[in-house]
Amino acid sequence: MNIPASLERLVAELARLPGVGQKTAQRLAFAILRNEPARAHALARAIEEVKERIRFCERCFGYAEDTLCAVCGDGRREAGTLCVVEQPGDVYVIERSGVYRGGYHVLQGVISPLDGIGPDQLKVRELVARVERTPVEELILATNPSMPGEATALHLSRLLTGKVGRITRLARGMPVGANLEYTDDVTLNQAFSGRQAFVTP
Amino acid sequence: MNIPASLERLVAELARLPGVGQKTAQRLAFAILRNEPARAHALARAIEEVKERIRFCERCFGYAEDTLCAVCGDGRREAGTLCVVEQPGDVYVIERSGVYRGGYHVLQGVISPLDGIGPDQLKVRELVARVERTPVEELILATNPSMPGEATALHLSRLLTGKVGRITRLARGMPVGANLEYTDDVTLNQAFSGRQAFVTP
Repeated sequence: MNIPASLERLVAELARLPGVGQKTAQRLAFAILRNEPARAHALARAIEEVKERIRFCERCFGYAEDTLCAVCGDGRREAGTLCVVEQPGDVYVIERSGVYRGGYHVLQGVISPLDGIGPDQLKVRELVARVERTPVEELILATNPSMPGEATALHLSRLLTGKVGRITRLARGMPVGANLEYTDDVTLNQAFSGRQAFVTP
Repeated sequence: MNIPASLERLVAELARLPGVGQKTAQRLAFAILRNEPARAHALARAIEEVKERIRFCERCFGYAEDTLCAVCGDGRREAGTLCVVEQPGDVYVIERSGVYRGGYHVLQGVISPLDGIGPDQLKVRELVARVERTPVEELILATNPSMPGEATALHLSRLLTGKVGRITRLARGMPVGANLEYTDDVTLNQAFSGRQAFVTP
């Protein structure tokens, strides 16, 4: 096998990324080789910079470039609403959508006894301290609609009932573009039990 | 939208890669953030190095780190066999498989009149000069089994008949793991017309 070492190294590094197999890594490496040098340099710089600059916000534990993240540092956000998510990346996704104007609290994981992860391994103590320090009218539990996500939401709701105004959970049901034929029973069940009055425009 | 600028930049750079959409770029960026700093640094270095070190081989026009690529510089390769491919990446794929021990000639493209690409825009003149300089017993046309790839193979075979020993083309047929039910008519036609004697072991 006579392959240039630097190309082989790039393919190997790309293939370490999750969801990137050997073929995808090759395709990406060839694309980087075909690109302008400035483009490849910008990508390499962006990778270095993100590791240099990003840390965790001291208040919400999401991604931040300063002591506080941009959301926690923004005085115009609704102070009484707190959205609890599993991962820092979840904040990114909700912020991109622009649907939410309150604050966040990132657990940095999810309760998973099989992996030895309980509330003490997550930012749960910090959440309790936070809601005791600052009054919260609504706590939105936005952990994933998965087994560990549900277990974590249940744990938090038991822990925080009485300490916050009301506790809500993101709606479950059929996602936009879904097909009834391929919808699983649990989702269908939730779509029926959570059905809403149809308002004719 | 309150997203750290360095994270947004990394997602944007990743999303410029072909076949990487916004969601995949986000997923890759989060993975890079979660990784060890050393891992991210290695990826960034690999990107920079591949652009610094890789150039085109002066003989075959594949990827090289020196004047000649590792294949052209390897005296143990079969001298009389030349495999013509479209892209430098094709050499990588064949080398990885280890099925071939001859030399290569990379056209750096394919004849495509609609895109204004004729033989003069490819390394065709260099191929003719090469086979006139060094005797070639077998010229394997390994351009893709697509319309432009077939047109390019046809052009080369007309141009080089008499100048080389024999001209062959990679076998067409059903790939391993394929399903007869989903095989297109052209491939099925080639699988039938190219059928071989079945040898019982």
